[in-house]
Parts: sequence; structure tokens; C-alpha cells
Amino acid sequence: MKIKHSSTDSVEMMRHSTAHLLAAALMKLYPGSKLGVGPVVENGFYYDIDSTSPISPEDFPTIEKEMLSLKKMNIPFIREEMTITDAKKLMGELGQDYKIELLNDLETYGTTRVSEQDEIGVSSQGGEAMISIYRTGDFVDLCRGPHVDTTKDIGVFKLKSIAGAYWRGDEKNPQLTRIYGYAFDTSDDLNAHLKMLVEAEKRDHRKLGKELDIFVFDDDVGQGLPLWLPNGAVIIEELEKLAKDTEYDAGYCRVRTPHIAKESMYRTSGHLPYYKDSMFPPMNVDGTNYYLKAMNCPHHHKIFSSSPKSYRDLPLRMAEYGTCYRYEQSGELFGLMRVRSLQMNDAHIYCTREQFGDEFRAVNAMYLKYFALFGIKKYVMRFSTHDPSKLGDKYVDEPELWKQTECMVRDVLIESNIPYEEVPNEAAFYGPKIDVEVWSAIGREFTLATNQVDFAVPRRFGLTFTNDRGEPETPLCIHRAPLSTHERFIGFLIEHFAGRFPLWLAPIQVSVIPVGLTHQEASRNLSDTLRSAGIRSEVDMSNETVGKKIRSAEKLKIPYMIVLGDKEQESGTLSIRA
Amino acid sequence: MKIKHSSTDSVEMMRHSTAHLLAAALMKLYPGSKLGVGPVVENGFYYDIDSTSPISPEDFPTIEKEMLSLKKMNIPFIREEMTITDAKKLMGELGQDYKIELLNDLETYGTTRVSEQDEIGVSSQGGEAMISIYRTGDFVDLCRGPHVDTTKDIGVFKLKSIAGAYWRGDEKNPQLTRIYGYAFDTSDDLNAHLKMLVEAEKRDHRKLGKELDIFVFDDDVGQGLPLWLPNGAVIIEELEKLAKDTEYDAGYCRVRTPHIAKESMYRTSGHLPYYKDSMFPPMNVDGTNYYLKAMNCPHHHKIFSSSPKSYRDLPLRMAEYGTCYRYEQSGELFGLMRVRSLQMNDAHIYCTREQFGDEFRAVNAMYLKYFALFGIKKYVMRFSTHDPSKLGDKYVDEPELWKQTECMVRDVLIESNIPYEEVPNEAAFYGPKIDVEVWSAIGREFTLATNQVDFAVPRRFGLTFTNDRGEPETPLCIHRAPLSTHERFIGFLIEHFAGRFPLWLAPIQVSVIPVGLTHQEASRNLSDTLRSAGIRSEVDMSNETVGKKIRSAEKLKIPYMIVLGDKEQESGTLSIRA
Repeated sequence: MKIKHSSTDSVEMMRHSTAHLLAAALMKLYPGSKLGVGPVVENGFYYDIDSTSPISPEDFPTIEKEMLSLKKMNIPFIREEMTITDAKKLMGELGQDYKIELLNDLETYGTTRVSEQDEIGVSSQGGEAMISIYRTGDFVDLCRGPHVDTTKDIGVFKLKSIAGAYWRGDEKNPQLTRIYGYAFDTSDDLNAHLKMLVEAEKRDHRKLGKELDIFVFDDDVGQGLPLWLPNGAVIIEELEKLAKDTEYDAGYCRVRTPHIAKESMYRTSGHLPYYKDSMFPPMNVDGTNYYLKAMNCPHHHKIFSSSPKSYRDLPLRMAEYGTCYRYEQSGELFGLMRVRSLQMNDAHIYCTREQFGDEFRAVNAMYLKYFALFGIKKYVMRFSTHDPSKLGDKYVDEPELWKQTECMVRDVLIESNIPYEEVPNEAAFYGPKIDVEVWSAIGREFTLATNQVDFAVPRRFGLTFTNDRGEPETPLCIHRAPLSTHERFIGFLIEHFAGRFPLWLAPIQVSVIPVGLTHQEASRNLSDTLRSAGIRSEVDMSNETVGKKIRSAEKLKIPYMIVLGDKEQESGTLSIRA
Repeated sequence: MKIKHSSTDSVEMMRHSTAHLLAAALMKLYPGSKLGVGPVVENGFYYDIDSTSPISPEDFPTIEKEMLSLKKMNIPFIREEMTITDAKKLMGELGQDYKIELLNDLETYGTTRVSEQDEIGVSSQGGEAMISIYRTGDFVDLCRGPHVDTTKDIGVFKLKSIAGAYWRGDEKNPQLTRIYGYAFDTSDDLNAHLKMLVEAEKRDHRKLGKELDIFVFDDDVGQGLPLWLPNGAVIIEELEKLAKDTEYDAGYCRVRTPHIAKESMYRTSGHLPYYKDSMFPPMNVDGTNYYLKAMNCPHHHKIFSSSPKSYRDLPLRMAEYGTCYRYEQSGELFGLMRVRSLQMNDAHIYCTREQFGDEFRAVNAMYLKYFALFGIKKYVMRFSTHDPSKLGDKYVDEPELWKQTECMVRDVLIESNIPYEEVPNEAAFYGPKIDVEVWSAIGREFTLATNQVDFAVPRRFGLTFTNDRGEPETPLCIHRAPLSTHERFIGFLIEHFAGRFPLWLAPIQVSVIPVGLTHQEASRNLSDTLRSAGIRSEVDMSNETVGKKIRSAEKLKIPYMIVLGDKEQESGTLSIRA
């Protein structure tokens, strides 16, 4: 089921226009202010301003009112093109020093050298560089566009927050006021988003992760390196059991590989130098550099090549829940979502071209099985394809293999009725790529995993099998990780289930609550009986009241409670609280 | 059941005397030769000689005959003490230049500066250093002793092999001939040992590991870093399942920790600087050094301290099959037995002093359970204790804790009837230590694991729990790893079972053998049925004859075979070959 993502583009355009609307309102309310940049961000936009008087969130109603009144005036967005010289003159007249700085850069370097550079369009006409501006009434801004037709086409917006931001992100520059806003097509969309945010805050995996004793970070261990507490380890063990059973049923074998390897292996794989920035620095052992693995594939390729293979050995599906280490800048680390150690539900499927379709279909079926199991209702596969004009340049020069595998991938996606988007010219250089995006129960999007078809790396490693004609042939390799990494997937599950895991995943399944001291022994015995039946049970031995113990079990989101007092001890019957 | 190891000492003494006997025989057969050193080694001895004519294994019968004739002459070993000056004079007369060099060193440095220095006794008398020599007939050697009374007390011996050895291990020095020999009390002992060696060679885990597709090494990954092939991974998964089930039943919880941590943590633990030589070099990330973990304990201590603990939380038994990395010199690496990556059946038990006895008893019971399961019939626990005179120096100054825990350990060992040896003054500095030695089915000794009681490190990490009087108290910590590391344990199991693993551990449990091409489909279906019943089954799809397929399954030591031909296909009955 192919989905178009052009609707996304139109929302982006509208958000961009809303940023202009904000700037126009600000210039009305704070005349003489200097504007920075105003790009589109997730769910909205922001604009940086060096305002003539301080702005605080208390001013939001006034600013929103001004924006609304401009919107109602139905002012058209009018595009004009001019030379940089003329643009500088215009901005000079308006006193917009930062815009002039951008134009100067554009003149000198051909780029504005800020990340939002694509806000400004530049084209060449008769030798002189031309840029575009957009006028909305008496407001004018450097802008590449496109924009909506008139301010009436802007949807609903709401200012969100204020932050300080150095001009161009450089702390040596003046600090500007950054005003964030939401923008959506309809008020239903906006309200749904705001509601989702409230819910997401309650379900924040960092907050729940702490409350439910799932993981911690420790300064002496290091940033981005989660320590999984016993409750977290239960979830990990259950996920691994699920994966191993599922993969066993699907005919995978398992391997175990070390977390380090020599530099020479990563030269062969191409991780060095191409992926070096995302790898930890080397350890020099007796004159040889060793690296922590950032991916499991090279080790698996080494196992593939450790003995001769024939077509009878294929497909060979090699799985490992391998822990990889990736360097992320400390500012980019975020809870379990962006970490430096990641344990991946990894597997590499080595197959012939003839086997590829079936193998890819089976991988997809595994995804769907997992989605159903975890109650993931909304998902989409972003299918990135190659551009035939860039073969041998951006893409490995195998026109037939590209055509064949892309065709097969597309057919499988259509046939299995999986919603997918096709994104041209975004494949990996070695083959088509699928990013799996899922939405949590509260409608937040997560990129869970990437599936890739690999034509090139098996060749770099010299992997071959003897085909049925007795000739050596390079296998295709499918990289897949349906359960993502433990870190990302458990982070997702915490939000998705709001910490109320399904029984099989619940770290503690039953809390046995003794009413008084005299019931502790019987409670322990009961709990031992449950545990020996494979039920994860714990006794609350604290000196608290029954009420407090029940609330504590509720806070820990334990699915079942058994209160054990005189009545239960005498009658031998138990009441279970779900 | 306490075992004395004085018998071992008497065998050592006899082996030492046999080395002298060899030297005496060599001096008779090759007069004028110069002798190097002649220490005791495992199961025997060697002697280095710069002989007047070349010696080869073909000369062994002659040398052995000469040794035997000296033995029969019942020559006494006579000890004499003399000054170094006199000893040098004596060795000068005998033309023993290497011995003179040792004496010169002894004079200058107070040591001979060779690893076998303890061969030479030195004592101080009236200001001048005295050394001892031993005479056996007209043979005389520098020696500390002790020796057997006469050559008749020497047991049975057999020369083993010849190797080149530089004098003092330095390649700039002359090369001597090193002659190795076995020496045992009785010929039964010698024959048993020789038989064991023949069997051990057949069962060599490196040879079988390759033949049974259990593990490989790869030059690009690195020395001492095994890659576990699918068959090896099955064994690993089964061992982990066993450990997890056993530990769940014993009330352990599990955790997961990263393979790296900051330098600061290893400063706290004391691994830096004390264990630095066994660790991989650091990785510098944004100015901070990170190290690969060589042990799991510091990470576990961090988890212990991540939330406040009370006496109600103890005992806390924290398990992890954690992979550690240790630097071993490349020359010391040996198959799976001495590696650089090791995945350990690790756990740390945090408990009060009152709980220690029960916890230690339970750990022992777990060992015995595993020994029974794996058919390990001979084992001994080497129990290393402290020396009270070295408290505060070699041992942490906790006299009561030493007494208490050593007493409890001893009581448990006696009570559970576990064979143990007590080794005074060899404890770890932080508590008593137990080395678990087991013998494989062919009688070879393996050190599987070390259990340690730890008083000191929990304090270094500031670990406390609130005791029942509301005061903070430092827990004791038991380090234990009954299943050792996967590397060492699987290495042991390969030899122990000669690769014929018990059914539950067998990587492939059933080989389905189609007689011809027409039986392949039915074979596949049968194998699929078996697999879906949880039986690890494979179909032999090769183009070989049934006989060859059976031999191939036998070579892979697959416990069951099912041959499927016309008869089976028609009758629907199968014959299973065990």
C-alpha cells in the first residue's frame, strides 16, 4: 500500500509561511528589531529575534493576536527576485543587520554558512547571483520559498516557548530570543498534538525508566552507557527469548562475536575511514589498532568466509544480539533513544539472487508478526531507492541488481499490503534501504530499524559461494533488525505501554502483600511457589500499611497483587487484584 | 573432606632429584659438557646442556639406560654448604662456566637473575653468603634441595623431547639443548599419564573445535578473540539457559552492563593501577579515558549503589553473563583456554555477615549440582586463607571478618563433604579465595573458576545498606562463576566429552539423511517437523552416498541419524541410528 508523502510537504510549506507570519507580527509589535533566521522544525517553526524590548511567554497572547489579525487580512505572499546588491540595499534600509551578514556570506562563499541556509534561494542569471525575497504586506524577508498563497491559507498555530540562542550558534555572537511555535492544518490536529505531548510527558521513558527501576546512568561508567537494572534485564531477557524463538522458527542460526576487531577488518569493510567519526577511538595493542565494533556485519562476514560455502548452504541466516558501540556527541545523547552502547536484534541473511524475494518476504512477515504482538497499529516502511543517473557514482554500478532487488522489494511491499513510501535517490550506496517507522500508542513517531540490501560489502570481503554451475558467486546480504536495539525498542515500549507492560514482559508479575508481620512467612511461601511455577513474584516486606503497599505496587505498575491476611491464611483462598 | 597436598611436594622433590640424575648421566656420556639449569616442570623436569657432541631423541635410550644404572647404584644425595668463593672454585675445576655465571650474579645481586633461581640455596653465615651444593657420586650441582635420600628413591622416568633454549632465555646468548623428561612415583602413574596424553591429543579442543565447527579465530579480528560458529553458539545458548534457570531458582536477579567504563571507576575499584597490565589500553573520548572491562564487579557495584538499600533487600544476588576483555601476551594465548575475550558466568552476592554462611553454602551446592550434571567426578576446592601476622600489610586489617568468613567457608566445605585443600597465606588481599579445580574424563586438571569473599572493594565503592538498627553497614560480597567462562568451560567440555556432547548440548541433535534425490523433500519435511518440536535437526543435502553421509554425521558426532529412503517413505516408519 503505497503512501504519498506530498501531504507532508504542504504542511511544511504552511509552517514556513507561519514563521513569516510570526516575524511580521513581531516587526509590528517591536519595530526596529533585528531578525535572525526562522526555519521549519518538527510540528512547527521558530524565529530568532533581537527585539527592541524583552519578550517573555506572557507576551504570547499579544503576539498570537497580532498574527491572527494578519492572517485574517488575507495578505498574499509575493515572491521577487533581485541581485544580492539590491537585497543588501533593501535590508540596509530596513535595518536588518543579520540579513545583511547572510547576504555578505552568500556573496563571498556562495553559502550563508548557517544550517538554515536553504531558507535563502540563490540563482545565477546573466553572471550575477540572484536571490529571492518574499513580501507579506509591508513585511519582507529573504526566502527561497515556496509559500502558501495568502495568510488565510495558514492553518492553526500556537506559540510554544522561548529560548536564548546565539546568532549562528556561536557563543561569541550576540544572544537572540528564539520563539518556538506549533503550526497544524486544523485545530483538531493541533489539539491532538498537544494532548499527545501531555501524554508523552507522563510516559517519558527517562522518567518511567527511573520510577520502574528499568535503567540508570552513572557518571563513572559514562554518558550514553545505560546500566540495565534487574527489571530492565527481565524485559531484555524476554525480548531476546522472543527473538530467538522467532528466529529459530524462521530457520536462522546464531553466532557470537567479540566486541572488538583489528583496524584491518574495518579497512576492508570501509567503516574506516567512512564511518570513523561514529566509532570509538582505537586501542593500540602491541602496535596494532583495535576498534570497538559499531556494527556486527563485518564479524558475521568473517564467519561466512571461515569455511567454503555452496549454494546448498544458502540462504544462511546468521543472527546475533550483538552489542555495538557508537560515538555520539555528548550533546546529542538522549535517554535510551540516543546512546553510545546499543544491543541490536541483528541478523544477516546471505542468499542468492533467486532466493532474495522469498527471504525479503519472510523478513517482512516477521516485522508484521512483531507489530501485531506489540499492538503497533500504525507503521510505514520508507523505501529508499537509487537514481539510475548516479550509478557508479553515488550508487554501486550494478544496474540489473538495483532494478531486480528494488522491483522485488516493491512487489513484496505491495503484495503484503504494508504501507510504504518510496523515496527516490536516498538508498545506501550498496543497495536499497528501508527505514521502519512506527507510531506509539499516543501517536508519536519512532524510527525503529533499517533494513538494507547489500550488493557491495560481501564483495569487499571476498565472500563467495559455489553456485549450482560450480562457479564462485557473491551472495546478496540482507541486513535486518526488526526489534531494533534493546535501548531504542525498550524506550519505545515504555512510552507505548506507559510502563504497563503486557504480562509476559512485566518485570514483576505478581506482588504478594502480607497484611501484617504474621503473614510474611506465608507470603514468602506463596511467592516461592509462584516463582517455581515460572511466575515473577515478589513479596512486599516493607513495614507499610496494606494501602501503601497496594499503592506502591500500582506505582510500579505490577499487573497482579495478592493481599494475604488472616482471612486468606485461614481459608486458604486468595483474592487476586488485577 | 580435607586433602593434604604434601604428597604433591614429595613428587616434586623426586622430580627434582630425577633432573640431577639426568645431569649426572649426561656428564658421564658427554664429559666436558657445560650444564645450564634443571628445574621441575609439570609432570617432570628438564635440564639444559651445552654438550660436547650433539644430542638427539635417538640418544634417549642410551641416556635413560645410564640414568637407570645410576639409580640402581643407590647413590646418596649429599648436601654440603660452602661460601660462594669456594663454590666458584669448585665449579671452575669442573669447567661449569654457566654455574660460575650464576654464582657471580649471586655475589653481585644476591640473586641469579634467572627464573629458576630458587634452584640455588643461599644463606648468610658470619657475614659471608653460603650456598648449598648436592653431590651424587662424582656428580655435583648447585642446589637448594631438598632431595630424596638416594637414587633408588627416584621413581620411574622417561625422556620426552628435545628443544633449543637460549641460555637465560636471551637470544644473544648461546643456544643450549633442553632435554625434557617425565617422572612419576610408579610406572602405573607414568603409563596413565602417557595414555592420557594420547587421549588428550585426540580430544584437543582446538582440533575438535575446528572439526565440529564450534569456533574459529580470524587474523583480521585478532588473536585470542574467538568467533563462535553456529554450533558453538548453540552450546553457549544452552549453557546460558542452564545458568539462568539455575540462578532464577536460586533467587538471583540479572542485570546488563556495558563493556566499557571511565577510568575513574577503575581508579575506585583499584584495577587501575594494580590490574592495568591485564587490561586493554584506554580509548580517549572527548578527553576522558574509557577502558574495556576486565571484570564485571565494578559495574555491578555501581548498580548496587544506584538506589538506597536496606537489610530487607539482602541478600542481593546479581548475575550477568558478561563479556570481559583481558590483555594476555600473544605468546601466552592458547586456543579457548587463554584468550583475550571471555564471557563469564558471573554473579555478585551482596549479603550481611549473618547471611554469609547460607549464601556460601548455596553457591557450593550450585557447583555440586553442575559437577553432577556434567559428569565431573573428580574436583577439589583450593581454599586460600590469610596469615594473621600480615594483617594490615598483605591482607586487609579485619581480623574478625577473616576469622569469621574463613571459619564459615571451612565449615561449609567440611559439612558438604567437598574435597578441599587449605593453602595458608595465599588469600586475596580482600578476603579468602577458593580456586575450583576439576579433572576431565581423561584425568587432566583444569582450573575452572575462582570464588572470592570480598571485604574491601564494597567499601572502596562506598556501598552500604541500612541494617535493622537503622545504621549504614557495608555488605560482604561473594564473587562466583561456577560455569567459568564460555571459552574455558567449552574448551573443557570438548575434551571432557571428546566432542560427544550430551543430547541437550549437542549442536545438531539429529541428522536426516535422504538416500537419494527423490527423498530430499520428505527429509526436509521431517527435519522441519523435528525442528518445530524443538529438536535441532539438519538434512544432509550433499550429493554423497548414504555411507558417506553416515560417516560425515559420525565425524560431526551427531547423536542421532535418520536414514530416509523408499522403504521409509512408503511405510511411514523410520529407523533411528544412535
